[in-house]
Amino acid sequence: MSKHSTTHATFTIERRYDAPPARVFKAFSDPAAKRRWFVEGEGWVIESYDIDFRVGGLERSRFRFGDGPPMTFDAIYQDIVTNERIINAYSMTMGGNRISASLATTEFRPAGNGTILVFTEQGAYLDGHDNVAQREEGTRQLFEALAKELKRN
Amino acid sequence: MSKHSTTHATFTIERRYDAPPARVFKAFSDPAAKRRWFVEGEGWVIESYDIDFRVGGLERSRFRFGDGPPMTFDAIYQDIVTNERIINAYSMTMGGNRISASLATTEFRPAGNGTILVFTEQGAYLDGHDNVAQREEGTRQLFEALAKELKRN
Repeated sequence: MSKHSTTHATFTIERRYDAPPARVFKAFSDPAAKRRWFVEGEGWVIESYDIDFRVGGLERSRFRFGDGPPMTFDAIYQDIVTNERIINAYSMTMGGNRISASLATTEFRPAGNGTILVFTEQGAYLDGHDNVAQREEGTRQLFEALAKELKRN
Repeated sequence: MSKHSTTHATFTIERRYDAPPARVFKAFSDPAAKRRWFVEGEGWVIESYDIDFRVGGLERSRFRFGDGPPMTFDAIYQDIVTNERIINAYSMTMGGNRISASLATTEFRPAGNGTILVFTEQGAYLDGHDNVAQREEGTRQLFEALAKELKRN
């Protein structure tokens, strides 16, 4: 038997923010803002982070949590519609093992004075190293960090 | 209303080939073989095709069907397990419009003297330019072309 296995799954997160689409979109397109809510965080050690926000551009992060194993995040932007939609494909490794490959669509829909963000991840979770429940929980934490970012002056 | 829309869908194709996994895998990893079944075909005009088959490597095709609109295919390899699994993320445009972004997993499972290929596409079909039924039909045609490739001496 192969020790390799692939589990495909999709999840969607919808969340409302009290900021217009242009402001929420900018938290994804502006490198300093994106780094604050997407990469930084208590306990996370960041070795490197780069983002080239354009179709075909890469976003790469090298990090670990405390004394945990080294992790990598590598994304490529596949579609960008300003203030409306971002699609990237990303994969992650932990301790040198690839744990997932995903297609992530973020849609920004105006809702009154705010924005409904709709995030859809279509993922392949690999070799038992990760699963969709963990990924959804981690993603919800990121969108909580985004809420804090949007409250900055 | 935005003229942008995103439809997420997943399809799976299973197909048996009378060739062992290493031979079927090679039709994906060998640039000349991949070009024959994946790119060439009656009526298709190929302007350029490049493949860099390694994790992080790109595959790019510029083509059209007859006098039809110019099309592009851009993939990045996200995971490769020799003779077992290939994951890439790809996007396509037609006439300058982005029509889709997809995560494509190809698994090669030994089955007697042959291989069961399991292809899973998790796709975002964009702005009404494409849909999952068309994509699945086009992919089935590609796997028919792969069957012919595997019959070459």
